[in-house]
Amino acid sequence: MNDTELQNAGRRVAVDLPRGARNPVLVEVTRGAVVESRHRGSIAVVDVTGKTALQWGDTQVRVLPRSAIKAIQALPLVESGAADRWSVSPAELALACASHNAEPRHIAAVRGWLERMGLGEGDLECRAHWPRHHQETLHALVRAGQTPGPAHNNCSGKHTGMLATALHLGEPLQGYVSPVHGVQQRILGTLEALCGLDLGDAPRGTDGCSVPTWAIPLNNLALAFARFGAPDDFLPRERAAAATRIRKAVAAYPEMLAGSGRYCTAMMAAAGEAIFVKTGAEGVFCAALPEFGLGIALKCDDGAPRASQIMMTAVLRRIGALDDGLADRLDALVTVPIENCNGNPVGEVRPSNEMGF
Amino acid sequence: MNDTELQNAGRRVAVDLPRGARNPVLVEVTRGAVVESRHRGSIAVVDVTGKTALQWGDTQVRVLPRSAIKAIQALPLVESGAADRWSVSPAELALACASHNAEPRHIAAVRGWLERMGLGEGDLECRAHWPRHHQETLHALVRAGQTPGPAHNNCSGKHTGMLATALHLGEPLQGYVSPVHGVQQRILGTLEALCGLDLGDAPRGTDGCSVPTWAIPLNNLALAFARFGAPDDFLPRERAAAATRIRKAVAAYPEMLAGSGRYCTAMMAAAGEAIFVKTGAEGVFCAALPEFGLGIALKCDDGAPRASQIMMTAVLRRIGALDDGLADRLDALVTVPIENCNGNPVGEVRPSNEMGF
Repeated sequence: MNDTELQNAGRRVAVDLPRGARNPVLVEVTRGAVVESRHRGSIAVVDVTGKTALQWGDTQVRVLPRSAIKAIQALPLVESGAADRWSVSPAELALACASHNAEPRHIAAVRGWLERMGLGEGDLECRAHWPRHHQETLHALVRAGQTPGPAHNNCSGKHTGMLATALHLGEPLQGYVSPVHGVQQRILGTLEALCGLDLGDAPRGTDGCSVPTWAIPLNNLALAFARFGAPDDFLPRERAAAATRIRKAVAAYPEMLAGSGRYCTAMMAAAGEAIFVKTGAEGVFCAALPEFGLGIALKCDDGAPRASQIMMTAVLRRIGALDDGLADRLDALVTVPIENCNGNPVGEVRPSNEMGF
Repeated sequence: MNDTELQNAGRRVAVDLPRGARNPVLVEVTRGAVVESRHRGSIAVVDVTGKTALQWGDTQVRVLPRSAIKAIQALPLVESGAADRWSVSPAELALACASHNAEPRHIAAVRGWLERMGLGEGDLECRAHWPRHHQETLHALVRAGQTPGPAHNNCSGKHTGMLATALHLGEPLQGYVSPVHGVQQRILGTLEALCGLDLGDAPRGTDGCSVPTWAIPLNNLALAFARFGAPDDFLPRERAAAATRIRKAVAAYPEMLAGSGRYCTAMMAAAGEAIFVKTGAEGVFCAALPEFGLGIALKCDDGAPRASQIMMTAVLRRIGALDDGLADRLDALVTVPIENCNGNPVGEVRPSNEMGF
């Protein structure tokens, strides 16, 4: 399939829906005998040709993919030769795809990689935030009387990768987060090729870490992940090799993708190369299933991560990518118990009947 | 209106809806040019006779009111004479209605009140959680090398009030959180009277702080708050006096109801006795408007507090309870900006067109 065919395959599904289209309830939050809250969403499961394998809700809805596409944003880092130029290790490559916990291993890796390129944290344009996902990391920082720096930003690995590419290609480092900078334009082109869609006129937002995020129909996002996972017949050879290299690096170092207690790390540690998963803010979740030749993209309407991760587990089980043995080991990812402050179970976050359970 | 009439007024609207009934999108979350996430919900605005003044979505849906009814849960504390017996101050009475930040003033007040009754933190059955809402309070605790105790639980004021009532009435202190304990049974009876509804068979859940929470149709919950705010013609004299005493105490000490940076505190500090508001977990929000003789109860379907507070501000504006001057002072409660880590605005949480703006 050539580039024109790729684009046409995508364009078929790039139709905007009327506002207010309604998606099914896919996740329920219970408390005692009551379903207390409900999360709606849409899920696209698409094969490498763009054909829908499974779907829930409106899969043509445009979503901002946020951090769910960090592995795709990392493709130019490898394709450009920057990863080899700076001797980027598989663990560092996994970190370039990460929304990490800012655990000591993440911070050390970002700083080491920057130092090797003659750069420092001050070159990162993601700025700082307090660690959000791992209580011990936050408390350790506070106990030490420190405040977070740019390396603590959960996106600092991605930003280090962006700097690596710009430096390798002789582009200005300052302003690499701008939508018109070479770094972001290369990412846009890569996204267009994988999604099979011209994104020049796509509505754009600014991500929390200041880089642009372009709205992409959910179907096309799933297509991009199908191709990311099974690239050999659908992407140019160098891009296919880059995708496989990145995917294997994350599978080998799942703790670098997120960290302790996190869904993406637990899933990939259990599934290895069979499942690539990556969460994004506001309820986006994407996955690639190389053995099935399928990509998954989902969005919880209201943006809740507690729901998007349950949707992801449920659809992986429906597809058969998560067999019973694996599901047993990932019990807490299938249904998440809600406890009161006494530590007693009082409810759960679970897939609805709509998801087929 | 006598007790039977009260119950009948409520029973009219106590009809369960079929599962999956769909509510309108009431709050939108934008990023750049894109509506990134959407929150659905239902809102009931009811007068003291139970007549609907305004409504959005399915207002007969049963919701677990959670912490939104703490002021109603505090009625027996006053009605029983316990508040007078233990010389409970207006600030402490406000704290009994609170989901507080665990700021030093909240902790000191809980401990002082317990001590005055010859009790200690160990008598509280809410157990502990880390402060959630106020970064400085959390950091101070960590810096001091401390862990949270029961007084830090956001519900510790409510629990102290429950202990005060049990102690005054000579009931066992241990197990006061049990649904069959006198403390909880009195609260159930009070709720039934205010909601105009028999709740004996109502589905029940356990709240995060271990007390029972009974499912109540949104309409009836709004009715309860209409009567809480304008009780004189609708509640027995002692209960009416207790409601007014509690409402005035909270209006005088809004910082005790929640704390720094919190919606309920900001709204009541600005509006004084004209508006009583109280948030609850999983997207519940209730309000009483004494001058209008109206009560408000709303529930965000997916449980998001960022949405329920925007819904509350929007409905207060629609009713006219929040005039333009007040709305200007509460600008950040009308539309909440979303910033990236650089502190630049990249989007907002805002009411949808459905809310009339």
